[in-house]
Amino acid sequence: MKEVSLSLIGFGNVGKGVAEVILNKNQYFKEKYGLDIKVVSITDSTATIWDPEGIDLKEALEIKRSFGSLKFWGSEYDIYDLKPPDVVEEVESDVIVDVTNDKNAADWHLKALNNGKAVVTSNKPPVVFRYRELLETAYKKNVPYLFEATVMAGTPIISLLRNALFADSVERIWGVLNGTTTFILNCMEEGMSFEEALKKAQELGIAERDPSNDIGGIDAGYKGVILHNIAFHPFDFKKASIEGIERISEKEIQENIKKGTVTRLVTLVENGKVEVRPIKLPTNHPLAVKGTSNVALIESDLLGELVIKGAGAGVKETASGVVSDIIRASLETKHL
Amino acid sequence: MKEVSLSLIGFGNVGKGVAEVILNKNQYFKEKYGLDIKVVSITDSTATIWDPEGIDLKEALEIKRSFGSLKFWGSEYDIYDLKPPDVVEEVESDVIVDVTNDKNAADWHLKALNNGKAVVTSNKPPVVFRYRELLETAYKKNVPYLFEATVMAGTPIISLLRNALFADSVERIWGVLNGTTTFILNCMEEGMSFEEALKKAQELGIAERDPSNDIGGIDAGYKGVILHNIAFHPFDFKKASIEGIERISEKEIQENIKKGTVTRLVTLVENGKVEVRPIKLPTNHPLAVKGTSNVALIESDLLGELVIKGAGAGVKETASGVVSDIIRASLETKHL
Repeated sequence: MKEVSLSLIGFGNVGKGVAEVILNKNQYFKEKYGLDIKVVSITDSTATIWDPEGIDLKEALEIKRSFGSLKFWGSEYDIYDLKPPDVVEEVESDVIVDVTNDKNAADWHLKALNNGKAVVTSNKPPVVFRYRELLETAYKKNVPYLFEATVMAGTPIISLLRNALFADSVERIWGVLNGTTTFILNCMEEGMSFEEALKKAQELGIAERDPSNDIGGIDAGYKGVILHNIAFHPFDFKKASIEGIERISEKEIQENIKKGTVTRLVTLVENGKVEVRPIKLPTNHPLAVKGTSNVALIESDLLGELVIKGAGAGVKETASGVVSDIIRASLETKHL
Repeated sequence: MKEVSLSLIGFGNVGKGVAEVILNKNQYFKEKYGLDIKVVSITDSTATIWDPEGIDLKEALEIKRSFGSLKFWGSEYDIYDLKPPDVVEEVESDVIVDVTNDKNAADWHLKALNNGKAVVTSNKPPVVFRYRELLETAYKKNVPYLFEATVMAGTPIISLLRNALFADSVERIWGVLNGTTTFILNCMEEGMSFEEALKKAQELGIAERDPSNDIGGIDAGYKGVILHNIAFHPFDFKKASIEGIERISEKEIQENIKKGTVTRLVTLVENGKVEVRPIKLPTNHPLAVKGTSNVALIESDLLGELVIKGAGAGVKETASGVVSDIIRASLETKHL
């Protein structure tokens, strides 16, 4: 049995989801991979709890559910005032798991890699803005830097581009990578106005209180840049051409329906180009997904067209990608 | 630069396709992976040509095209009467590539693995009937045994199940995995009789002269067993429940169309179960593919439904899977 110790940084919805998967599937991972995954620290915005012997995840989830933050945890565990950069330096662990929204996380990702720790992240900005530095450092230090959950939640588009299709040259990727906009467009297809649709998405927790990143195409652009970074070379986000769905009228959507088309926010990635814009598609087009499903269509020289479609959001679905990366990191890292 | 030497066994359509990809993309593979792939022997049904310095693939392809078999090759290369089991013993190479239809190939796959050679195959029977033995030997000898092209050509369903989705427990796989039957059903949807459709498929080289393996569902059953072997555990092909498309009448197909449905030969894989049978599907169902496209729908505990759709046949498309495996084997093998 190989023991792997994690520092879980971020204990919101995704962090709790990751803890739940590790808790519920621990025995499965032991049997299938010979891996014993142990969480030695958890950090939320208020505090870090830390136990080198491994934290009781069931209890941690209950405390978080009951009290909202880790600083109220009494009894057994010591509570530390460690921020992510401190955790990366001071806590002894094999894998750093970043499920925060910290825009400056690349700094402590680098610190972790330089300390010989694997990094697994669902946090997009580091992978968008600091890709070259992070990957070069990971390569130099011979530790994994993994980010499956940054695009299409756990749907393995990143594994597919990094760990399969080795013989093909990718020419182009088309994707519908933002579920929130698809959800809003679906509601409008059913007759709601843009404002009603957005409100419904917010009520269901699909859109954030400030929805501008989703609606304005920034999130889809981030994801396009990440795919470009992998399939081609590091791309400067400032050079992405981005148009959101704000200017789509209810009238337009209704006219679409009469013509048998739907509008989707499509991300196009080619060598040297990332473009996000609403595109009209026939309803039976592979990109014409519904709900929070995401889809990517990869064009390459030998295979032609390859379509991968699956969950693009959701707690369990995102945890799937994060935990898959944790297992990959554990299996790949020789010195654990 | 890492040098990798191959023995290519089988020089029919797929073998020639593999040689062409290695020839045309050699520089790309050098730049992208630091790999210099060198074919040191090629075996067809008549002879083996062998050159430890690497065979000129352009010339080999021309000879094969002009004369039909390798034994007519004059000049530079020595021609040997080596059969696959001899090649595996006598030719010094890092990777054995089996693109034959040899039903007894598992014997020489095992020999190759025991000699510390990686094996890459597009040949199904070994992976269907001798999976446990082959995988155990590969594991013991610490060499890769790879078979991406046995299911869905180069569409990376096997990579996806073996090298991604590590956190998910697969519950069920639905697939349309035989392009020949889909092609025939498509022709029937357009008004042809079964016999006319089969004849057209044979003329286009999509169906073989003896089409019983495709039409009777055996090929789809082989592929289902391979997926079961990976996703669950080795499955006894004799226990697969198989029904082909022979009994589908033109009348039935025409009635389908009126109801907005199509019939496809569907493979269902669950733990302990492999089933092949024609199923009626709504035309917008993810499994309702056309032409020689293949599709698989994977149901798992965390991700829910994942669909992967792409080429299921074709020379370039199959070579994509074989060469991807060659590169994977080269990258994974430490002692090369």
